[in-house]
Amino acid sequence: MDRDNILLTPGPLTTTLRTKLAMLKDWGSWDADFNALTARVRAGLLAILNAQESHAVVPLQGSGTFSVEAAIATVVPRDGHLLVLDNGAYCKRMGRVASLMGRRTTIASRAEDAPIEPADVERLLAADSSITHVGLIHCETGTGIVNPLPEIAAICERLGRGLIVDAMSSFGALPIDARALRFDALVAASGKCLEGVPGMGFVFIRHEVLAACAGNSHSLAMDLHDQHTYMARTGQWRFTPPTHVVAALAAAMDQYEEEGGQPARLARYTGNFDTLVGGMAALGFQTFLAPEHLSPIIVTFLAPDDARYDFKAFYAGAKARGFMLYPGKLTEVETFRVGCIGAIGRAQMQQAVDAVAHTLREMGVAPARTVRAHGGTMA
Amino acid sequence: MDRDNILLTPGPLTTTLRTKLAMLKDWGSWDADFNALTARVRAGLLAILNAQESHAVVPLQGSGTFSVEAAIATVVPRDGHLLVLDNGAYCKRMGRVASLMGRRTTIASRAEDAPIEPADVERLLAADSSITHVGLIHCETGTGIVNPLPEIAAICERLGRGLIVDAMSSFGALPIDARALRFDALVAASGKCLEGVPGMGFVFIRHEVLAACAGNSHSLAMDLHDQHTYMARTGQWRFTPPTHVVAALAAAMDQYEEEGGQPARLARYTGNFDTLVGGMAALGFQTFLAPEHLSPIIVTFLAPDDARYDFKAFYAGAKARGFMLYPGKLTEVETFRVGCIGAIGRAQMQQAVDAVAHTLREMGVAPARTVRAHGGTMA
Repeated sequence: MDRDNILLTPGPLTTTLRTKLAMLKDWGSWDADFNALTARVRAGLLAILNAQESHAVVPLQGSGTFSVEAAIATVVPRDGHLLVLDNGAYCKRMGRVASLMGRRTTIASRAEDAPIEPADVERLLAADSSITHVGLIHCETGTGIVNPLPEIAAICERLGRGLIVDAMSSFGALPIDARALRFDALVAASGKCLEGVPGMGFVFIRHEVLAACAGNSHSLAMDLHDQHTYMARTGQWRFTPPTHVVAALAAAMDQYEEEGGQPARLARYTGNFDTLVGGMAALGFQTFLAPEHLSPIIVTFLAPDDARYDFKAFYAGAKARGFMLYPGKLTEVETFRVGCIGAIGRAQMQQAVDAVAHTLREMGVAPARTVRAHGGTMA
Repeated sequence: MDRDNILLTPGPLTTTLRTKLAMLKDWGSWDADFNALTARVRAGLLAILNAQESHAVVPLQGSGTFSVEAAIATVVPRDGHLLVLDNGAYCKRMGRVASLMGRRTTIASRAEDAPIEPADVERLLAADSSITHVGLIHCETGTGIVNPLPEIAAICERLGRGLIVDAMSSFGALPIDARALRFDALVAASGKCLEGVPGMGFVFIRHEVLAACAGNSHSLAMDLHDQHTYMARTGQWRFTPPTHVVAALAAAMDQYEEEGGQPARLARYTGNFDTLVGGMAALGFQTFLAPEHLSPIIVTFLAPDDARYDFKAFYAGAKARGFMLYPGKLTEVETFRVGCIGAIGRAQMQQAVDAVAHTLREMGVAPARTVRAHGGTMA
C-alpha cells in the first residue's frame, strides 16, 4: 500500500501537505516576486527571535552544517580562537569544522549525558584570555540534551567574548529572545522545528559584528558578509537559491504563525514528548538522559538489553508499521532516537508507541533496564 | 489570473509538473529507500557521461557554485597552481573562489565574445610548468559561448595537467564523453539541463585523482573526498541532504531518459534556439556573439539602441505576457539574455518571441543595430 510513513527523525521530518504543495511552482530567482518571498522569510525569522533591531539574518544554501561552517568562517577572524563546548556529536563536528578551516580551536569536552556547566565556561574563559569566541550547541541532537544558553550568553557578554550558537534543533520551539541575551551568531535551518523541507540554513549575526566581518571567510560560497552585502543591495541571493525550498519554508512559517508561534509549537512538541516518554516507559524503556535533562525535541532511548534485540530489525518492524525511527549516535552505549518534532501530534505519537510495542512483541524482546552513566567535570 | 510564468532563465528554469510532484513526499535521509534513490541518481549521472569506469560522482548540497568551490578545494592540492581560462563572468568567479581559498591562481583573460583558443592554452602551459591544473567553463552562462572542451582536454592530458570543467550549463545537453576525453573533475547541478529543481550540485572526479585527494580541503562541508568516502561506506550523505530536491532530480532524470537522453535534449533545445534566434532576428535583434559561437543553452542579445528602451520596463512587459527574461551580465555593453533550456518547446518559445514583439511595440522601441566587438588574443 502506498502510504507515506511518518518520520520520527529530527530533520528531515514530516511536513504538512500545504508546505509541500508550495513547491509546485517554479520561481525566477532574479524576479521581484521571489525577492519579496526571501524578504518575507527573513523578516519572519528575525521576528521569532525578537532580533529585528539587533541582528541581520543571512540565509545560505545547503544543509545546516554548511551554515555552521559559514558562521564560524565569517564571524571568527583568522587570528581568532574558538572554544567549543562539547557534550555531543554536533559539538565535536563544530570543533572539526573550525580547526579544519585553520581557526585556532580548543575543544572542552564533558560526558554526553550532562549539560554544559556555566561555571566551567567561566573558569575556562578566565584561564585563557586568547579565546575570542565560544561555540555552543543549544540542543545537542546527538542525545537531545539542552544546554544553558542564557547563562552562557551572560558569561560571554560579561567577559567580552563572542558567542556562536548552533540552535539547529531548538530554533522555533525552545524560547530564545535576542533582547534578553546576547549572541554574535545563531545558526538554524529550514528543515527542523519550523517544519520546512531541508536545503537551506540561516545565520543571525549581530549588526556590529557583521560590519567587521568582511574578508574573514576563506570561502566565497560561505562568506555570509558577502552574501548579506549582496542581498542588501539587490534583494537577491548571490548564487542560485533553492527556490522551491525557500517557498516551502515561507509556507511552513505561515502555518507556524497561524498555530501560535513558538509557545504553541513548544506546547505541541511537549505533548508529543509526554506521549512518547510516558508510553515508552510503560513498555519498559529508559531514556539515556536523566529526566531533568530531556528535551521535547529528540529523545535518546537505551536499546533493550536483550540478545534478541537488533536495531535493523527493530527499525524495519517500526517502518513496516508506518514509522521511521532514528539510530543512536553514541559510541559507548547502544541507543536509538525518536524525534518529537515535525507535523505530527499526540495521536501519531501514540500510534508510534503502539508500533514499537508490536515490533518488540514480534521480536520477542524485553526492553532495557540499564543503569545510567553520569557526567563529570569538563576537561 | 494565477497562471505560472515560463522561466527563460538558465536555472532555475521551468520544470515539468511530474518533476515537481515528486517533491510531495518526505523522505527519511537515513532510510534505505532514500539511499536507493541517491544511488539511482548517481548511476544515472555517470551513465550520461559514459563515466561508469573512469569516474565517481559525488553529490553536494547547495548551488552549483558550492560544487565548483568544492571541486577546486578537493582536487587542487594546497600547493597546486590553477590556471583559469577566462572569457566570462563565471570564469572570473572560479578564479575568485580559488584565490580566496588560498590556492595559487592565474587568470588568463580574453574578450567575452571569443571562445578560448586551444593554442593559447598550450602556450600558457608550456611557459609555466608550475601550473598543475586548468579550470575551464564549458558553456559560459554569462554570454552563452561554448569553449572547445575536447581540444583543451587533449592538451591538458598531453602536458600532464589536471583539468577541472565547470559544465553547469552544458551537462546533459551538449555531448561530453568521458571515454573520449580526460578530465580530473567536472561539475554540474540539478537545476540546469537535467531540468530538476535547484539545491544540489554534483562533481565527477576521476578515480585515480579522488584517491589522492584526502586532506586537500580546508572545508569540511565541501570536502568531496570525505563526502565520497562516507557515501561509499554508508550509502548516505554525510550531512542532511535536500531530500525533496534529490527526489525531483530522480524524477527529472527519468523523463530525460524517456525523452531520449542527451541527443533528444539537445535536439529540443536546438529547436527552441532556432525559434528564438530566428524570431528575434526578424524583430531586428542582434546577438552579442557571432552566429558561429552561439549555443542552444542561453543567448545574449544586444539591447535596443533606443532611448525609450529600459530593461526593467522590457522585463515587466514580457513578464506581464507570461515570460521571465534574464538580465545581461556584461559590463561594457547593454544586453539581456534568454535561456533555451527547461521544460519548454518551440511553441512556448514562439509565444515568448511574440510577447517580446508586443512589449517593444508598447514601449515604442526599435531594436538595436550595434556592431559587434571582436575578441583578441589571451593575455
